[in-house]
Amino acid sequence: MAIHAAVAGASGYAGGEVLRLLLAHPEVRIGALTGNSNAGQRLAALQPHLPPLADRVLEATTTEALAGHDVVFLALPHGQSAEVAERLGDDVLVIDCGADFRLRDAGDWERFYGSPHAGTWPYGLPELPGARQALRGAKRVAVPGCYPTAVSLALFPAYAAGLAEPEAVIVAASGTSGAGKAAKPHLLGSEVMGSMSPYGVGGGHRHTPEMVQNLSAVAGEPVTVSFTPTLAPMPRGILATCSTKARPGVTAQAVRAAYEKAFQDEPFARLLPEGQWPATASVYGSNTALVQVALDEAAGRIVAVAAIDNLTKGTAGGAVQSMNLALGLPEELGLPATGVAP
Amino acid sequence: MAIHAAVAGASGYAGGEVLRLLLAHPEVRIGALTGNSNAGQRLAALQPHLPPLADRVLEATTTEALAGHDVVFLALPHGQSAEVAERLGDDVLVIDCGADFRLRDAGDWERFYGSPHAGTWPYGLPELPGARQALRGAKRVAVPGCYPTAVSLALFPAYAAGLAEPEAVIVAASGTSGAGKAAKPHLLGSEVMGSMSPYGVGGGHRHTPEMVQNLSAVAGEPVTVSFTPTLAPMPRGILATCSTKARPGVTAQAVRAAYEKAFQDEPFARLLPEGQWPATASVYGSNTALVQVALDEAAGRIVAVAAIDNLTKGTAGGAVQSMNLALGLPEELGLPATGVAP
Amino acid sequence: MAIHAAVAGASGYAGGEVLRLLLAHPEVRIGALTGNSNAGQRLAALQPHLPPLADRVLEATTTEALAGHDVVFLALPHGQSAEVAERLGDDVLVIDCGADFRLRDAGDWERFYGSPHAGTWPYGLPELPGARQALRGAKRVAVPGCYPTAVSLALFPAYAAGLAEPEAVIVAASGTSGAGKAAKPHLLGSEVMGSMSPYGVGGGHRHTPEMVQNLSAVAGEPVTVSFTPTLAPMPRGILATCSTKARPGVTAQAVRAAYEKAFQDEPFARLLPEGQWPATASVYGSNTALVQVALDEAAGRIVAVAAIDNLTKGTAGGAVQSMNLALGLPEELGLPATGVAP
Amino acid sequence: MAIHAAVAGASGYAGGEVLRLLLAHPEVRIGALTGNSNAGQRLAALQPHLPPLADRVLEATTTEALAGHDVVFLALPHGQSAEVAERLGDDVLVIDCGADFRLRDAGDWERFYGSPHAGTWPYGLPELPGARQALRGAKRVAVPGCYPTAVSLALFPAYAAGLAEPEAVIVAASGTSGAGKAAKPHLLGSEVMGSMSPYGVGGGHRHTPEMVQNLSAVAGEPVTVSFTPTLAPMPRGILATCSTKARPGVTAQAVRAAYEKAFQDEPFARLLPEGQWPATASVYGSNTALVQVALDEAAGRIVAVAAIDNLTKGTAGGAVQSMNLALGLPEELGLPATGVAP
Repeated sequence: MAIHAAVAGASGYAGGEVLRLLLAHPEVRIGALTGNSNAGQRLAALQPHLPPLADRVLEATTTEALAGHDVVFLALPHGQSAEVAERLGDDVLVIDCGADFRLRDAGDWERFYGSPHAGTWPYGLPELPGARQALRGAKRVAVPGCYPTAVSLALFPAYAAGLAEPEAVIVAASGTSGAGKAAKPHLLGSEVMGSMSPYGVGGGHRHTPEMVQNLSAVAGEPVTVSFTPTLAPMPRGILATCSTKARPGVTAQAVRAAYEKAFQDEPFARLLPEGQWPATASVYGSNTALVQVALDEAAGRIVAVAAIDNLTKGTAGGAVQSMNLALGLPEELGLPATGVAP
Repeated sequence: MAIHAAVAGASGYAGGEVLRLLLAHPEVRIGALTGNSNAGQRLAALQPHLPPLADRVLEATTTEALAGHDVVFLALPHGQSAEVAERLGDDVLVIDCGADFRLRDAGDWERFYGSPHAGTWPYGLPELPGARQALRGAKRVAVPGCYPTAVSLALFPAYAAGLAEPEAVIVAASGTSGAGKAAKPHLLGSEVMGSMSPYGVGGGHRHTPEMVQNLSAVAGEPVTVSFTPTLAPMPRGILATCSTKARPGVTAQAVRAAYEKAFQDEPFARLLPEGQWPATASVYGSNTALVQVALDEAAGRIVAVAAIDNLTKGTAGGAVQSMNLALGLPEELGLPATGVAP
Repeated sequence: MAIHAAVAGASGYAGGEVLRLLLAHPEVRIGALTGNSNAGQRLAALQPHLPPLADRVLEATTTEALAGHDVVFLALPHGQSAEVAERLGDDVLVIDCGADFRLRDAGDWERFYGSPHAGTWPYGLPELPGARQALRGAKRVAVPGCYPTAVSLALFPAYAAGLAEPEAVIVAASGTSGAGKAAKPHLLGSEVMGSMSPYGVGGGHRHTPEMVQNLSAVAGEPVTVSFTPTLAPMPRGILATCSTKARPGVTAQAVRAAYEKAFQDEPFARLLPEGQWPATASVYGSNTALVQVALDEAAGRIVAVAAIDNLTKGTAGGAVQSMNLALGLPEELGLPATGVAP
Repeated sequence: MAIHAAVAGASGYAGGEVLRLLLAHPEVRIGALTGNSNAGQRLAALQPHLPPLADRVLEATTTEALAGHDVVFLALPHGQSAEVAERLGDDVLVIDCGADFRLRDAGDWERFYGSPHAGTWPYGLPELPGARQALRGAKRVAVPGCYPTAVSLALFPAYAAGLAEPEAVIVAASGTSGAGKAAKPHLLGSEVMGSMSPYGVGGGHRHTPEMVQNLSAVAGEPVTVSFTPTLAPMPRGILATCSTKARPGVTAQAVRAAYEKAFQDEPFARLLPEGQWPATASVYGSNTALVQVALDEAAGRIVAVAAIDNLTKGTAGGAVQSMNLALGLPEELGLPATGVAP
């Protein structure tokens, strides 16, 4: 008995990645595909990497088109999910790849997004303490932002074990697909190839309050986050280099033990062997997050690095992993744990 | 009842890609993994994109290590396959990703490879006329070269339909993984990023006689091939731009019809809709070949372009597709038809 | 006594490269910089790689703004140069980086550009037979297209020496800057990185008639050209792989001799030592074209490859080289012969 | 009266960049070029981007070869400079692009490099307080490391103005040329394209003590540095994202003013207009460093970012800038302030 899934926003990068994963999922049958500006077009032109869907035609994103599915994935611009979701029945599983339902604090939402807060849904990062339980049987899921996924996986074990002071400094490099498919001059290949550049410096990036929320919840106290995202010359991947001040007396052994414990049973978050550091190429197209950690004794900081694919574990893979949990399926079902490398 | 598979040469790029595909194959259980210079090392260090095999240890490539499997994939340097293969029983399926058994003409082999010819095995490009039948039930398979895979798919329909004169001009761009994992200065990232360069110009590339062999067999007469490979700044992918002189009176309609006919039932070779041209990004990590063709009336030439992933359809995917045929499994079983894009 | 130069279209890639070169030119003083959609903006934002011009402000492209200069460079969209040029006095040197005045045949122009033909100006590729003389003292210069620059340099020696049949097959890879700075989805970094793709296949590219014109003039008979451009994952550079059928009896020695003779006195077009093939990285930011040639005896074809920087030798460098000739300055003055590599 | 310059280590990336810059320097005549493993080879093969030197032949690095020059640039592996330098006369200007003479603390040297300390030379980063004076008339210059160049430029104004606590967290992305031309598997194009990865995490990178030395000298107290370098998929460029805890009461205006003051008269270090952040592409091949700074009030940190070309400002450009100062030439002479972009 197949699960019938619809994807709203099927012409973008997040929507395309959801479709790539659903095509490989043994229990899912792909139903309606919708988009607005591209309604009426064939998927062959919009997502040429998905030949099995080449002859599908995009519909407009309407309640009618999305009705009658077991699961609806929303891959819409920020601010559009709430209206679509409330027209879908409470018995439909709605998985929002956008930001609308990630934040708990309405003030944070309004400050960073400039519109009324739509609410808070169960948070689709099962590796966080308590998150997996909240996802089981859920009917609504807020998929985390790509940066918060990487950063939270890199740092939560240090906070969960009480090893870190409540301040974190994060510099993360992201592939360009994180900026979406809309054509903007600074995202042209001519501009980004051979170039690294920062943006949203000084606390302005919208993913900052989400990181603060996640790390503070684990720490049990407010954590201050300095976050600088950078654009890297690659289509996919996030490398999050995170550090936090070590509490007095913390040893390298204690750090290692905390991270081993945090990831020992996780199917999609792996602590690498000591001395081996993650590369984003290793998780290209994979739902795996690779993590490594070290204690810099001279600087007194715990340095943790996570590599993910921003479109897979950072968006669509997290979404499908959450779907599996919400529907009571095996958590790993249909998801790639291997990267396409080199 | 699982198929038990061994991979000789599991630390290289071809071997790694065979493993990535076998991990996703529902009927295969991965047995021995061998290598020579890396024997004793854990796969976590050698193939960090394959976490499910992280704890496996490479053995030396010996008859004992490879014994007792249903299938043995050879991903060895040219010239080493024959000796390994003859020690494996006739009932074992041996699939050689190297060049040793591709050529029919011993003189061609000796001229291009400088060693005695080992023989000729069934050729693992099922899309070529007659090839699929020869692969069914085979116990030995020679996987085609990556360039000949792309070029043969691009041009065989023109020859099969009698539309082309027996001369072809081919310029193909390849990602750097085609050159393997051995560290050479001209393959450093610093050298290849931002750069295109040709090599083996003037007929010297070893894949030239394989293209001549394939196209001549379809044409029924000797086809002359001018082949220039170029190194492109990308890890994977081949874009083969191929042209041939059109026979007198050939029309665009006839060309289109020939290509539609050639690919209409193929699971992994697709003719794109008219006007859409293939990009290698669309087949990243995919076993699909995308093909398009046009008639340049002013120049009097049929121009056909194929895009493949050199490691998937061009090597390991072709190998697994051939394995499926040889073992009587569904040809598409376990193979990705979708690319990882963008 | 400095040469006073204006640049119309100073916010685009061609205009920016003209400025980069003029800043290094010892005899030039940069005057008006104009643009239309960006008028009023500071160059700091538009061309951040040109700090010495950071505080300059773009004016609108008007006759007044461009008046009073010794040289005016036009880096405008196709079809806009004629109107601007005719308002500038006959004593002003006007150098058009656009296509408007490249073609001699009005029918070709109309067929490929769909508008009335504006005329024909001296052609700014000094290496072509007769071209240098026509540029000396000229008041109007049509800068060649980037592809025709590379292709003409690669093939004209074979035609000049009577070694080649009148048919050429050309596949060229270009960096993305050749497509300009206008934001289009298929030019996004996410789309082009890691990908090769063809476009304008089958004779449709507008640079085709320009190649036909150049090669036919050298050959003394109409040359048929099959041209396929491909987009490569790099910001700059063209690698043109060109071949032509060798006339009967042509030897490798004769080919080598013809190319040595053609380039022996050229400051910016160099034949590489035998066996060494050009890489676009070697000419990054350089006005040098690197050329190599071989005779493929089995295929009966002369294969010649040229590497240029599409923005330097292929556009702005060719423009400044032509300016030097037109003004009676040393041809090499202020132009970089070295590339930025690796 | 030309300056006669020799380059030891002319076949590597640093040596090649020194040569590229010296070719454009109006007062320099290039003399002996030496190398060891490549002695006897022509530069055409080793540095194909430098056509004006194509016919030069590399000599062995001997005292005889280097004798008789006004300036000798050393671009040798770490640990080899001292022996070469002491055989050159005290009247010869020796500029060491290696690490041997950068550190003042012998213990630091021994800890990070594992060999006896050779000494300390005037430090070739003229923008640092006091450094320019020490370079004027110097006969020995230690060119800074590429990372310390970027990091010191980004952070010294904050320390010079007393705005920052003595702790800094730095994450820097470097192009692959920083790792040199020796062929190592992890530097293959196949491995680095499309990938970001950290290395030397936890304080192990040899450039860390050099940063500590520079920042502590400006701060007047020991500064703790957490430094994580990452390898980025580009041939050149460093983007250093640096942050430090702001002292109580520090305002955004005070930070801006400190940086404006620090860079107002610098020819090769520029503070960008407010709101504009640097990209490494803007300094490709340029001796300019672009810097921007912000105060993150929520996190209480000053965040400063510098972009340089690791081979130009980070190595060879810094070397030539220091040569100009040492010889009493205009500091900017012959050095490119513009980048090759896009």
